[in-house]
Amino acid sequence: MKSFNDLQQIYGDNLKNSVIPFWLKNGPDWDNGGTFTCLDRDGGVYDTRKYIWLQGRSVWMFCRLYNVYEKNEHYLKIAKLGLDFIEKNAIDPKGRYYFSLMPDGKPYFYQRKVYGAVFCMLGYLEYFNATGKQQYLDKSVDLFWKIRDWIADPTLLDRPVFNGLPRTSSLADVMVLASMAIELAAVDPKQAYLDVMADSLRNIDRHFDAGKGILMEAAALDGTDLSRFPEGRFFNPGHSIEVAWFLMHLLKFMPDKKKEQMALDIMKGSMETGWDKEFGGLFYFMDIQGKPTLQIESSVKLWWPHTEAIYALALAYKKTGEKYWLEKLNEVHDYSFSHFVDKEYGEWFGYCDRRGNLTHTSKGGNYKGFFHVPRAMLFTSQL
Amino acid sequence: MKSFNDLQQIYGDNLKNSVIPFWLKNGPDWDNGGTFTCLDRDGGVYDTRKYIWLQGRSVWMFCRLYNVYEKNEHYLKIAKLGLDFIEKNAIDPKGRYYFSLMPDGKPYFYQRKVYGAVFCMLGYLEYFNATGKQQYLDKSVDLFWKIRDWIADPTLLDRPVFNGLPRTSSLADVMVLASMAIELAAVDPKQAYLDVMADSLRNIDRHFDAGKGILMEAAALDGTDLSRFPEGRFFNPGHSIEVAWFLMHLLKFMPDKKKEQMALDIMKGSMETGWDKEFGGLFYFMDIQGKPTLQIESSVKLWWPHTEAIYALALAYKKTGEKYWLEKLNEVHDYSFSHFVDKEYGEWFGYCDRRGNLTHTSKGGNYKGFFHVPRAMLFTSQL
Repeated sequence: MKSFNDLQQIYGDNLKNSVIPFWLKNGPDWDNGGTFTCLDRDGGVYDTRKYIWLQGRSVWMFCRLYNVYEKNEHYLKIAKLGLDFIEKNAIDPKGRYYFSLMPDGKPYFYQRKVYGAVFCMLGYLEYFNATGKQQYLDKSVDLFWKIRDWIADPTLLDRPVFNGLPRTSSLADVMVLASMAIELAAVDPKQAYLDVMADSLRNIDRHFDAGKGILMEAAALDGTDLSRFPEGRFFNPGHSIEVAWFLMHLLKFMPDKKKEQMALDIMKGSMETGWDKEFGGLFYFMDIQGKPTLQIESSVKLWWPHTEAIYALALAYKKTGEKYWLEKLNEVHDYSFSHFVDKEYGEWFGYCDRRGNLTHTSKGGNYKGFFHVPRAMLFTSQL
Repeated sequence: MKSFNDLQQIYGDNLKNSVIPFWLKNGPDWDNGGTFTCLDRDGGVYDTRKYIWLQGRSVWMFCRLYNVYEKNEHYLKIAKLGLDFIEKNAIDPKGRYYFSLMPDGKPYFYQRKVYGAVFCMLGYLEYFNATGKQQYLDKSVDLFWKIRDWIADPTLLDRPVFNGLPRTSSLADVMVLASMAIELAAVDPKQAYLDVMADSLRNIDRHFDAGKGILMEAAALDGTDLSRFPEGRFFNPGHSIEVAWFLMHLLKFMPDKKKEQMALDIMKGSMETGWDKEFGGLFYFMDIQGKPTLQIESSVKLWWPHTEAIYALALAYKKTGEKYWLEKLNEVHDYSFSHFVDKEYGEWFGYCDRRGNLTHTSKGGNYKGFFHVPRAMLFTSQL
């Protein structure tokens, strides 16, 4: 078993010598702006389109590195390359954000979801933190409130609402609202942001399955039991663990011992329920009653639930000093570094089948960019 | 190696004693109408919603069985149960078809695609063939022309068109237009239907990669080379093989020796390129240049490419008498019957990982219903 310090060392080293160099070299599109994310094992670009949520994430990540890791002007330059590209191209005539653009910035696809906008909002904010340019704080705040409205009324995104189910809360939406409010409150601890956080706490309660100690993905706003529908039985261990560490961050603004215990319970429950006892690794998602899922890809192993677990378990260990968390951290660490980390070309692979066989050689795509890996490596090594 | 007659025997037996009984017992929703398709291994329903394209497919299949297999009034009764449910619930105020409904028929999701409508159209037509009721032929014809318009102008489905790519032809659309026209022409060999078929032939040419003998999934309408985009490198062996046998059926209406050879070339090329040389089975889809795919589930093995290959290879063997086709048929047969066929509860499983490990115990879902398996077993056993 590795000590906590050893692990922190490894993560710092992975960030510095493997992850950052890979993206510095292969990401930026100096010709058209923005960043490439569809990178093959050796960094070759297999799709030149620009996926907006990954553009925003890359901006956020490079600014965060600049702010807390290394005052490297090159990071800021790449962030600005992304930011300019976003501001020029990512916004539709109604102020909403596209999902993807052609390499040169022409609109390619609009998704009717908020996540593109969410990560641009975080990118604006972190760029403000890096440069002090007020206009980016203003943009960020403005977009934050828009996103809250879009989540409350999805028809604003042109999402037709006629599903026969009771209206549900989505854990992903709870998560992004909480994470944006946390970042804003760190800059300006206004009551309005604390109110959104308090809302998020109530929403997390709604998703909490106390028996299993996990957060379910969907919860009916009117309290209806959704378990006869697949959506109501849908458990995503990575999301559940990610929200648990967001919750820990949130509680710095409104300390609450009971909620802190709940965050630990969620980490424990999600690890116990979400870990594959037969082949190791965290499931992508599962039906909590063991019924078949509608989706084909439920049982595969993805990189990001593992990066989220690494940081969450490290946080829990740091907080409690209990050996249990260090053991679990070692388990996730061993799985991740033997399955995902590419020792030859740097960065992490993204996808294995249930049994741990690599299915894709890519380092990035339309869902994987410069985000989960460097964030977890940075946060954990700096704990 | 099994003889062709032995295989036909097996397929007839599988249809009669395994597939039909499973769906007769577990499919029909006698309370609310329509059919359940989300069935677990033993037939238990894990999602009670009604997926419209699978409702239409079930109606078509039961009517086809009634028409060419067994004049069993029970088949017709189940078809009518589905038809009434569709007519009452599946159509939106603009005459388009929902993707899914709540168990009792309330709208659940609208997909902005034509496939729900396509299979309802085929269901109406086959019910007309079974009963002679003119109104169902009329409905079918009316919907056929609507679908053609929807494919030509996707904004009619509320599909925003602002992708920066040149406009593309989708193989799935070519396929459904051809298949509907073939079925209509069999009832009424009007010039208008033959014209659509001739159009389909020209479109198939567009998708044809003569070097590899395969049909690619997307083709630019203006002839632009799309290979720098993942969509332009996307090869779906099951689709390619399915279109090849549609093409054979189409050529009965407009015989053409060259095109017949092309259909055989496509079957051969798709088998050679799409077959997994390492672990067996047909890939779900792949990047034709061997680059990573954006989708997670590309390398898994699905039941339906195998059922389509069984019928296509049988057709090729029957047509040519060449041993090559019988050998290939045996290969696909062995893979299918050792991986997908459930000897205990009947029907076929749907999903294995690349290495052939079953990933889902389900017999049906939102994409698998009473269609590909019975169609292939029926068509092949009756050849």
